[in-house]
Amino acid sequence: MTIDVTGYYLEDLSIDQTAAFSKTVSEADILLFAGVSGDTNPVHINQAYAETTVFHGRVAHGMLSAAIISAVMGTKLPGAGAIYLSQMLKFRAPVRIGDTVTATVRVCDIITAKQQVVLETKALVGDRVVIDGEARLRVPSRHNPKDHS
Amino acid sequence: MTIDVTGYYLEDLSIDQTAAFSKTVSEADILLFAGVSGDTNPVHINQAYAETTVFHGRVAHGMLSAAIISAVMGTKLPGAGAIYLSQMLKFRAPVRIGDTVTATVRVCDIITAKQQVVLETKALVGDRVVIDGEARLRVPSRHNPKDHS
Amino acid sequence: MTIDVTGYYLEDLSIDQTAAFSKTVSEADILLFAGVSGDTNPVHINQAYAETTVFHGRVAHGMLSAAIISAVMGTKLPGAGAIYLSQMLKFRAPVRIGDTVTATVRVCDIITAKQQVVLETKALVGDRVVIDGEARLRVPSRHNPKDHS
Amino acid sequence: MTIDVTGYYLEDLSIDQTAAFSKTVSEADILLFAGVSGDTNPVHINQAYAETTVFHGRVAHGMLSAAIISAVMGTKLPGAGAIYLSQMLKFRAPVRIGDTVTATVRVCDIITAKQQVVLETKALVGDRVVIDGEARLRVPSRHNPKDHS
Repeated sequence: MTIDVTGYYLEDLSIDQTAAFSKTVSEADILLFAGVSGDTNPVHINQAYAETTVFHGRVAHGMLSAAIISAVMGTKLPGAGAIYLSQMLKFRAPVRIGDTVTATVRVCDIITAKQQVVLETKALVGDRVVIDGEARLRVPSRHNPKDHS
Repeated sequence: MTIDVTGYYLEDLSIDQTAAFSKTVSEADILLFAGVSGDTNPVHINQAYAETTVFHGRVAHGMLSAAIISAVMGTKLPGAGAIYLSQMLKFRAPVRIGDTVTATVRVCDIITAKQQVVLETKALVGDRVVIDGEARLRVPSRHNPKDHS
Repeated sequence: MTIDVTGYYLEDLSIDQTAAFSKTVSEADILLFAGVSGDTNPVHINQAYAETTVFHGRVAHGMLSAAIISAVMGTKLPGAGAIYLSQMLKFRAPVRIGDTVTATVRVCDIITAKQQVVLETKALVGDRVVIDGEARLRVPSRHNPKDHS
Repeated sequence: MTIDVTGYYLEDLSIDQTAAFSKTVSEADILLFAGVSGDTNPVHINQAYAETTVFHGRVAHGMLSAAIISAVMGTKLPGAGAIYLSQMLKFRAPVRIGDTVTATVRVCDIITAKQQVVLETKALVGDRVVIDGEARLRVPSRHNPKDHS
């Protein structure tokens, strides 16, 4: 049986190539994220406390939206086979229960000698940027025998 | 009802102050993280595929370990009341099913004028650094009336 | 240790015998189903997208309601000990967050020579049929020594 | 903001076109599937009971593997925008904890007048077919104004 799940090769990427993935953030997402991460900060899970804060209600974990960004890279661009090297995240605005987060990535640099790609990464709710930042990944090459098992 | 869940005030922080939180990453954590994030990259959820990769088996999502780092900040240092501004993450090594991830943070700068703290952030499995990086948060001040609801 | 969890024997089944099981489908069910199945179709997890579709909002995975049908067979009729051979499913209408799905099964044929039962299977929300179809299972017999461990 | 998550149009499909998706079935998957579906048949969740059966151990819910089949259709072929009309499933062999299920679909008929596609659907563990069957979906058309919101 052939396993055919490989994402892009370095040679198939081009500057300004983009991909996106969207997901509505539910209360259940926040609860499960608290359980998986251990981040039980009351601003995420305690509505009474959260209402006393500047957010006036519960907000999603910043890393949950960051995880939706990583989903684009892990499943679409560059997809399976790439290795995550680094991620810069600037948290610009909160995400609330019921918000649909759209994560977008755009190729902004291809470093052929290192088999690396630099992506501009954003998360949006409607037109509002909630996270911006930059990711770097190692991408397999058609010309590197180590990338072919 | 009194809500007493506030973390540190800026005035209570000091350089080199540290905190840590540890969590064992189970197969269920990875599965749930895939569901919450939408990141179904086969290296996380497909053992047969993952064995053909450089990792020789399934690995946890990088953002799952990053989320454990954010758990330290959200629950311990600086704790509830702080606002996450930015996070730099460098992914150094994979985390596997059954690994216990210890996230540590250390105060490396306090910017009083901006009410900001800079933290060195790490995730370790045993003695091995799996993520390092740096976070910046806005921390409430005892002297800022806006920080007292 | 005595294990006493066996369902019906073939000899105890009769034509038109019925059983039912109901479950409210929550947003969390849909999220978890996405994680377990890998089915991140946006019509299930992206409210903004789902509103642009003919469904005008998120709907549950069809296989989630099908799984509630299989729950009746696995736990009630015929219950533990039966082996699932086949299932025909016709998806008639969508299931939305908050809908209570009632799955019903009715014995419509008993094939003694093959130790098989044919069940009419339905899922309803209120009076509306959301799935109909037919299942076939192999059921243990009191007279077959292989069915008694 | 543009939402760009549409799958194939009818006009872009061709006979024998295929797609696949694989996922390792963990104990956590089975547990969560039991919770979401309500199917607590002991052959799935009771190891002591399951060892007394013909399976000699716990097996995954048949509908869990069926859900992995539906994931291919919901995310790849035909992808978002298609409407699931029917599914025939024949359960050929059990799936155990740790098995990697590969779901494959192949276009075997395109019914242009009805905007429908018929897919041969299989689930495999290695080279062994665990489910085979057939699905029918309604697919959007470039030429149908109702399919363009």
